[in-house]
Amino acid sequence: MIVLFTDFGLAGPYTGQVTAVLNQGAPEMPIISLFADAPSERPKPAAYLLAAYGAWFPAGTVLLCVVDPGVGSDRRAVVVEAEGRIYVGPDNGLFDIVIRRASGAQMWEIIWHPGPLSPSFHGRDLFAPVAARLATGAPITELAQPAADESVKRAWPDDLAEIVYIDHYGNALTGLRGALLSPKARLGVSGLSLRRAATFSAVKPGAAFWYINSNGLAEIAVNAGRADTTLGLTIGSAIAIEN
Amino acid sequence: MIVLFTDFGLAGPYTGQVTAVLNQGAPEMPIISLFADAPSERPKPAAYLLAAYGAWFPAGTVLLCVVDPGVGSDRRAVVVEAEGRIYVGPDNGLFDIVIRRASGAQMWEIIWHPGPLSPSFHGRDLFAPVAARLATGAPITELAQPAADESVKRAWPDDLAEIVYIDHYGNALTGLRGALLSPKARLGVSGLSLRRAATFSAVKPGAAFWYINSNGLAEIAVNAGRADTTLGLTIGSAIAIEN
Amino acid sequence: MIVLFTDFGLAGPYTGQVTAVLNQGAPEMPIISLFADAPSERPKPAAYLLAAYGAWFPAGTVLLCVVDPGVGSDRRAVVVEAEGRIYVGPDNGLFDIVIRRASGAQMWEIIWHPGPLSPSFHGRDLFAPVAARLATGAPITELAQPAADESVKRAWPDDLAEIVYIDHYGNALTGLRGALLSPKARLGVSGLSLRRAATFSAVKPGAAFWYINSNGLAEIAVNAGRADTTLGLTIGSAIAIEN
Repeated sequence: MIVLFTDFGLAGPYTGQVTAVLNQGAPEMPIISLFADAPSERPKPAAYLLAAYGAWFPAGTVLLCVVDPGVGSDRRAVVVEAEGRIYVGPDNGLFDIVIRRASGAQMWEIIWHPGPLSPSFHGRDLFAPVAARLATGAPITELAQPAADESVKRAWPDDLAEIVYIDHYGNALTGLRGALLSPKARLGVSGLSLRRAATFSAVKPGAAFWYINSNGLAEIAVNAGRADTTLGLTIGSAIAIEN
Repeated sequence: MIVLFTDFGLAGPYTGQVTAVLNQGAPEMPIISLFADAPSERPKPAAYLLAAYGAWFPAGTVLLCVVDPGVGSDRRAVVVEAEGRIYVGPDNGLFDIVIRRASGAQMWEIIWHPGPLSPSFHGRDLFAPVAARLATGAPITELAQPAADESVKRAWPDDLAEIVYIDHYGNALTGLRGALLSPKARLGVSGLSLRRAATFSAVKPGAAFWYINSNGLAEIAVNAGRADTTLGLTIGSAIAIEN
Repeated sequence: MIVLFTDFGLAGPYTGQVTAVLNQGAPEMPIISLFADAPSERPKPAAYLLAAYGAWFPAGTVLLCVVDPGVGSDRRAVVVEAEGRIYVGPDNGLFDIVIRRASGAQMWEIIWHPGPLSPSFHGRDLFAPVAARLATGAPITELAQPAADESVKRAWPDDLAEIVYIDHYGNALTGLRGALLSPKARLGVSGLSLRRAATFSAVKPGAAFWYINSNGLAEIAVNAGRADTTLGLTIGSAIAIEN
């Protein structure tokens, strides 16, 4: 299975062109769009989102990950192998949290170039051909060479006390793993101090709370309402952990 | 074929994760997203939309239907067989109109549990595995037991004189089957009384009218314009039938 | 491969129903949605977008193209063969630029009717069945008869000095082929005169510029910003070419 994690947006030609390249290169392989709306051009919140959602897929999955504000600059293009999954994308921190949470993750720099490379669309012209090759069983060593993990220079925290994604229902996902928080912890946002609830139906309509979502992240929600507009939350909003 | 009818939204991880589960469980089966933007958390208008659009698919289709504001509460999880199609989803009225319009529809309560169930995402953790099994030929009786249809307690009408969906062009779909209305009937909305036209090009640009859409619903439209903003229509807006 | 180029929108039932028809008629064929948000009901800018993006696909691709404000009127339904690709859709100018840029393109009028035709959804009821048949190898002559190209009556220019699409990042695509412009040409929009840059990272954050995008169109962008809101651009905005 090839999984797409990008900020290409739902509209327009980008996801379609990348899917066409993947399909040409790996004809029998299912292609699943997980996020086409990862935090736009913001690798840091995207890194926490990817770590939580990528780990849900079985070993052997190839994840094509493109949140790439530096496209056209000299940032490296990399492959990361972690817990049996293969991640392909730009080296801008997007894989830092995946690597930190895995045991024995490895990073390679892509040296194979499949053909002419447009300066603005490496997702289509470089990362997708590499992902298709790897999905069909090509060894990583054929396309890339071992590279040093440079995440230490960014020194991002293990968990991010910020909103990293707003979903369709207006729920606000944090970069905090719920299982690492005390069940009695409160999350402070917008002057409020929110308690944990097991699920939506455990609180009154209109009440704000936090819960551990279906991929393990602490998520702020309002039953029968939108947390984003009610609480003024957006990607990057800070969360206070109150024990 | 497996068809998705959900309010998961176009963005975010929900449709992707459900598609991944379906693909793992039913690898050769085409998966079609019909609606990812069914009326959000509103089973009543969604029920009329589903009845009109689900019936368009051939017998043998499995429809995975999730508009589920009660997820995590004790609402039942069900399978409905109607006219040779199989519907899987929550028992909150979403299937009431499908059942009423079919001859001899049957309802089962799902008793098979495929594994750990997150409190907030039964679409992925329960309904998708059930749909995949049924799509690959498992008998319903292996996963579910006969259950009573409780639609009588909701007593929703045969047709709903309300807007049930606004489409991309701003057209407003009603919950009324067009063939049951007199061709001379007028539909009253926002202080206007709209006549029927055969199609868009039969009226002047800017004119509002109703017509029978390509799935049989009475639909309110404005030629070369948007009915929703022009007429102030939204999901739930009432329609008066003027004969 | 079957490629969708439509203004159906991302939401709602239209893309799903068309995909279901294609899948039923051409079961093994990959179906790629390239644009579901082509310029809504505006064949002229859509024609320049289609010419630039359709040509990216390999020979043998069938492109199902629906931007069809005249559906239900007597506009012709056509098949165009150009450079080994097959285009299916309404005859309203959408294929004018594809034809003009190809050598020896041919046009046919569709005469085969697959079944009942709803007045408002020829994409599903006519164009998709035709596209599926052609994708599975049916000769065009079985479904259509040679027809005259009537693009001369529209006399659209070779390149369109207007914005034809705004993408997810707020970049504004013009209908101008970048390779036909002098590298020193400036593009005038909203009282500004923009220079060309090779790529985003070649200009300062916040700076507006134009560049040749990954499909050859001149595109107006703002590094780390949105060109559409910053410069007040929308589909149809005029561009001045300043040499």
